[in-house]
Amino acid sequence: MLPPFGSDNYAPTHPEVLAAIADANDGYAVAYGSDPWTDRLSHRVEELFGPGATAFPVLNGTGANVVSLMATTSRWSGVVASDVAHAHTDENGAPERVGGLKLLTRPATDGRLEIADVASWAGELGDVHRAQPAVLTLTQATELGTVYSVEQLAELTEVAHGMGMAVHVDGSRLANAAAFLGVELRALTSDVGVDVVSLGSAKNGGLLGEAVVVLSPDDAPTPRAADVRRAAAEAIPYLRKSTMQLASKTRYVSAQLLAMFGDSDLWRRNATAANAAAQRLRAGVEAMGGDVVRVTRPTESNAVFATLPYAAADRLRTQTRFYNWADGETPERVEVRWMCSWATTESDVGAFLAALDTAL
Amino acid sequence: MLPPFGSDNYAPTHPEVLAAIADANDGYAVAYGSDPWTDRLSHRVEELFGPGATAFPVLNGTGANVVSLMATTSRWSGVVASDVAHAHTDENGAPERVGGLKLLTRPATDGRLEIADVASWAGELGDVHRAQPAVLTLTQATELGTVYSVEQLAELTEVAHGMGMAVHVDGSRLANAAAFLGVELRALTSDVGVDVVSLGSAKNGGLLGEAVVVLSPDDAPTPRAADVRRAAAEAIPYLRKSTMQLASKTRYVSAQLLAMFGDSDLWRRNATAANAAAQRLRAGVEAMGGDVVRVTRPTESNAVFATLPYAAADRLRTQTRFYNWADGETPERVEVRWMCSWATTESDVGAFLAALDTAL
Amino acid sequence: MLPPFGSDNYAPTHPEVLAAIADANDGYAVAYGSDPWTDRLSHRVEELFGPGATAFPVLNGTGANVVSLMATTSRWSGVVASDVAHAHTDENGAPERVGGLKLLTRPATDGRLEIADVASWAGELGDVHRAQPAVLTLTQATELGTVYSVEQLAELTEVAHGMGMAVHVDGSRLANAAAFLGVELRALTSDVGVDVVSLGSAKNGGLLGEAVVVLSPDDAPTPRAADVRRAAAEAIPYLRKSTMQLASKTRYVSAQLLAMFGDSDLWRRNATAANAAAQRLRAGVEAMGGDVVRVTRPTESNAVFATLPYAAADRLRTQTRFYNWADGETPERVEVRWMCSWATTESDVGAFLAALDTAL
Amino acid sequence: MLPPFGSDNYAPTHPEVLAAIADANDGYAVAYGSDPWTDRLSHRVEELFGPGATAFPVLNGTGANVVSLMATTSRWSGVVASDVAHAHTDENGAPERVGGLKLLTRPATDGRLEIADVASWAGELGDVHRAQPAVLTLTQATELGTVYSVEQLAELTEVAHGMGMAVHVDGSRLANAAAFLGVELRALTSDVGVDVVSLGSAKNGGLLGEAVVVLSPDDAPTPRAADVRRAAAEAIPYLRKSTMQLASKTRYVSAQLLAMFGDSDLWRRNATAANAAAQRLRAGVEAMGGDVVRVTRPTESNAVFATLPYAAADRLRTQTRFYNWADGETPERVEVRWMCSWATTESDVGAFLAALDTAL
Repeated sequence: MLPPFGSDNYAPTHPEVLAAIADANDGYAVAYGSDPWTDRLSHRVEELFGPGATAFPVLNGTGANVVSLMATTSRWSGVVASDVAHAHTDENGAPERVGGLKLLTRPATDGRLEIADVASWAGELGDVHRAQPAVLTLTQATELGTVYSVEQLAELTEVAHGMGMAVHVDGSRLANAAAFLGVELRALTSDVGVDVVSLGSAKNGGLLGEAVVVLSPDDAPTPRAADVRRAAAEAIPYLRKSTMQLASKTRYVSAQLLAMFGDSDLWRRNATAANAAAQRLRAGVEAMGGDVVRVTRPTESNAVFATLPYAAADRLRTQTRFYNWADGETPERVEVRWMCSWATTESDVGAFLAALDTAL
Repeated sequence: MLPPFGSDNYAPTHPEVLAAIADANDGYAVAYGSDPWTDRLSHRVEELFGPGATAFPVLNGTGANVVSLMATTSRWSGVVASDVAHAHTDENGAPERVGGLKLLTRPATDGRLEIADVASWAGELGDVHRAQPAVLTLTQATELGTVYSVEQLAELTEVAHGMGMAVHVDGSRLANAAAFLGVELRALTSDVGVDVVSLGSAKNGGLLGEAVVVLSPDDAPTPRAADVRRAAAEAIPYLRKSTMQLASKTRYVSAQLLAMFGDSDLWRRNATAANAAAQRLRAGVEAMGGDVVRVTRPTESNAVFATLPYAAADRLRTQTRFYNWADGETPERVEVRWMCSWATTESDVGAFLAALDTAL
Repeated sequence: MLPPFGSDNYAPTHPEVLAAIADANDGYAVAYGSDPWTDRLSHRVEELFGPGATAFPVLNGTGANVVSLMATTSRWSGVVASDVAHAHTDENGAPERVGGLKLLTRPATDGRLEIADVASWAGELGDVHRAQPAVLTLTQATELGTVYSVEQLAELTEVAHGMGMAVHVDGSRLANAAAFLGVELRALTSDVGVDVVSLGSAKNGGLLGEAVVVLSPDDAPTPRAADVRRAAAEAIPYLRKSTMQLASKTRYVSAQLLAMFGDSDLWRRNATAANAAAQRLRAGVEAMGGDVVRVTRPTESNAVFATLPYAAADRLRTQTRFYNWADGETPERVEVRWMCSWATTESDVGAFLAALDTAL
Repeated sequence: MLPPFGSDNYAPTHPEVLAAIADANDGYAVAYGSDPWTDRLSHRVEELFGPGATAFPVLNGTGANVVSLMATTSRWSGVVASDVAHAHTDENGAPERVGGLKLLTRPATDGRLEIADVASWAGELGDVHRAQPAVLTLTQATELGTVYSVEQLAELTEVAHGMGMAVHVDGSRLANAAAFLGVELRALTSDVGVDVVSLGSAKNGGLLGEAVVVLSPDDAPTPRAADVRRAAAEAIPYLRKSTMQLASKTRYVSAQLLAMFGDSDLWRRNATAANAAAQRLRAGVEAMGGDVVRVTRPTESNAVFATLPYAAADRLRTQTRFYNWADGETPERVEVRWMCSWATTESDVGAFLAALDTAL
């Protein structure tokens, strides 16, 4: 079998992350986050996202999202999301079941919500029969491999804040988005008025664990956003515990995040590699020409979407692993997703393209 | 500062566990548990707990407990527990908030529930106004450092099954109990009719992650228990995901558990060391004689409880770290908990005793 | 002001219902449903829905739906529903917040789900990342005033059962549907394989209270459906209490339902009157001819939907009360809903039409 | 059979309440509480509890409690309660299941919490592993038929506020307490700093429905209590809907509450009658002298608790209905609860005492 292209989660842990874990295995440390590694992470997060930003290590991406959403909502709130948002489609209802939240979705072309999608929920405000739109969640990069531009984020955030909502970024692939746009993480978060971020690590070379980052109340673009951030930062320690997202030996999560987001910018190196592999893969697919295999979405991070005949997909699947995503243009065709990761090499892509060519 | 005696969670990860993680960092592996390490763990768990037992790696101890309890209950169920059960006192209501469960507690001398405590809930059965007792949870070793004997477990399980309840063991320190009693893990679980176990690793030298183990329906002592186990094993994959307890890179959790519970019996070596340290500590405290410091509970695992004057405790706390547990015999005295771990050395205990002597 | 056309909930209680309440005010009666009125209701429900059907009085329609859905699902389940289902749009997330359920919706033309909508969820079965489709909920009559035919119900139920799902009917206007089709209640429920029904009363002349009816396991078309019904009937007494849907003085709810669904067929008389008023209203609107006001949906129960200019709607609103429903064909136009009730008289409709004519 | 002494819920609806319902059946009225009866209730509640107090009609007592508790807490909160609180023992976990709340209980002599019981939770504040004590709930009259004095309420409220908690009164029998003490309702609520009240009606002659009353922020004894009240009054409309406690035809609930709490003081007349019946019953039991039947609790509202031999209780039960409450002094004896209601007549009590005498 060739390397799998099913998910960036299939990749191993980056050696620098593993080394950081080993370094953290140094004698006793107070549990539940009162340790030097977590302290250092706090400082580093302020460097990256601005003074006053606070970091809360959690156990996984679903946990980061649910804790973030609970921290910015009330018990009668709704979460405005795209209809392909991971929190809507792939977390087995965790926001509903753990958070009691209702997802308020709109169909999103190429995964990106637009201003009008957000604004369309304004009519629910104040209606007791409706879940009250309280937070907008944006996935960056989106589930369809696209990226919100800095301008789009700023506009969406402004609209959401104008409606009294908070703004959350599901950043399980924030690194890929920042690498694609060539910007710092804060350009996609702090600088555009985002309130809370699920800061991803595992999909980009981490072993286990992510962080929730609450941006500084002092940077908030509206007084209400400042209140939301203050309240979120007070709430998360309790929410994290009661939703089972607090690691006893938090130092090992924090050490990973320090490796990933430390001075050596591992996050950018890994994401750049994954994005480049995807571009190479896309170029190779497009070079096959013809109509049998067709790239279907912009490639702005580490995913390539394409349609091809079911039969060809099945033949390819005898060589490598990947997921069907949606129906294709005809009943005989299927849209598939091919994911690259920090570990995907040029030769991995080459071998994959050769196998695809054979399968077609 | 001396080494802390606050929690076994303060100890580092055992080198064999760390090595196992590094070994698992070997190329691509399918995410979410469809990997070779998790497969091997499944086999190993059947060796340890009997054919048909199933293992589900999860992220932390609270998660193991809540998933176990949800898997054995309905939405209108209650959980019979001791009033010092970790799930009742130290999980910030996770069973209530995530599981919608009600804890049905009885005061428990030295942390152990008795037959009469369990039987006292029988009157609630069938009363729609009352949470229906559906699962008995027993902590082994208990939060007070004591251990249920094999006979006690068998009797409690029989009574619970006779009331139609399932039996869960919160085994965050199951290793310590088995080491103290000199028995295999199955002697405290499969062999006495327990249905589901939270199998602990982190407190005994693991890095991050535990497992829920469902015992084999074929071994169940009653037809209802067999049904409960079958239903639990079917439910847990969904519950684990929707309660945010499923790691994307599950291989790294499974690899730790394999190191801990594999052929080399690391679990027993570590627990034996921790228990021995506690015995040494207890002996040293008792050797101080007199009434100023008094051991207050049986020492059957890795915890020593004692009372001493608040002032002495505070002086000692300038040298090492530990928690107050309860009021002492007089307003001037406090009961404290001193925890040992796999990493506690003879010289750690010696230094602690010297500091205690000075503080008194 | 003219009589309102905003909701059938605005109508008063029918005098026969009020008389039944007064009759039930006869001395002591055991609380929480162990009373003669509730016993009689049980018998009557078996007459209407078949021997073995069980009735559970509850407090309101949202309660009936949520109890029904919880009784037929697991903690990791999803509810397949139309995107205009009341449970999805107008219950402020009660299924999510109280039941921990995820709504799995499809857009539904004129409010009716089709076979393909239901079948489209089959791919989620067995995928732990997805809420598991466990119950199909059909609103009859739908929120858009349309009605599922007996054949459609039978087909949808068969497909849902074939996927292992239960079938729930939100029958807050079941009476209107049965009156429109000229059939008995059982023709739309028991006879087509439905498992659980929210049996509405308040919108059709009741004062306060509805019932959940579980159809007989003996009538179930599949063994699994029989199991679901048996489990639901066992679960509901506990769910009803723990979701706060059990009235202490249940006799007063049961007495209303007996008046509504007793020998005198008040349900049919009231629904027939409401439907007839809607037909009269529709005919009057259509008779205005022209394009300024246009009826937009089939009128198969007691609702008429139409589009007209916003300005005209606002003028009409100075005379009577009704809700905007959706955008109209152009930005200047709006779709409105005009509801009739058992209490709507010929002269009410006449006065409304005159006011509409003036407003246009 | 004699009249039952099992529960005040067994009594019929008072004729004045029934008449008020009939009076409210007057043409159309907007649903969900925007009706003249609910408006009048709002004004009346301000007369009774002070300007700025707000009333929210709900469907039952459990609903009133859960809505009140959710409105004054966060998702990580705990509720300080007596171990015999109805919300803890008789609501099948509704606060846990619907509200995600954890009950923090202390054993309470004769049903009344003391200052030390409340203060004992202070150590949990700020500890992320513990449910955070956020609201104190006091039952007035208590489940054991006793009453908190005005002074006790004032002290408990002051302590709770001092710990940053809100104060809720479960007043399902507030009328009985006020009648016993000879004070106005506000003397037990507004005037002693209580924040939120479950205002009972059904147990005192109502048909169905209660109210949540939030006291005025302007009267709050602390700034934090003012904030809590403001937030609660904003939250309840949404919580009431999403927890399924909002009646569509709210006018019929409001009309009952107006009858009960209107100018004619029906609440006091009914409660006074019920209390007097209990005093008569107690006196009759005590007059039997001897040790066979012994009154066990103060009789300060409408309940009499006594112990007697199981055999005698069983004989008495062939004549009337009542509940066993607890174990008696010996295994042969049981403590029972005899409840009187507004409808209990002198001759009912006389007949009961005669039957008791025979049974002994």
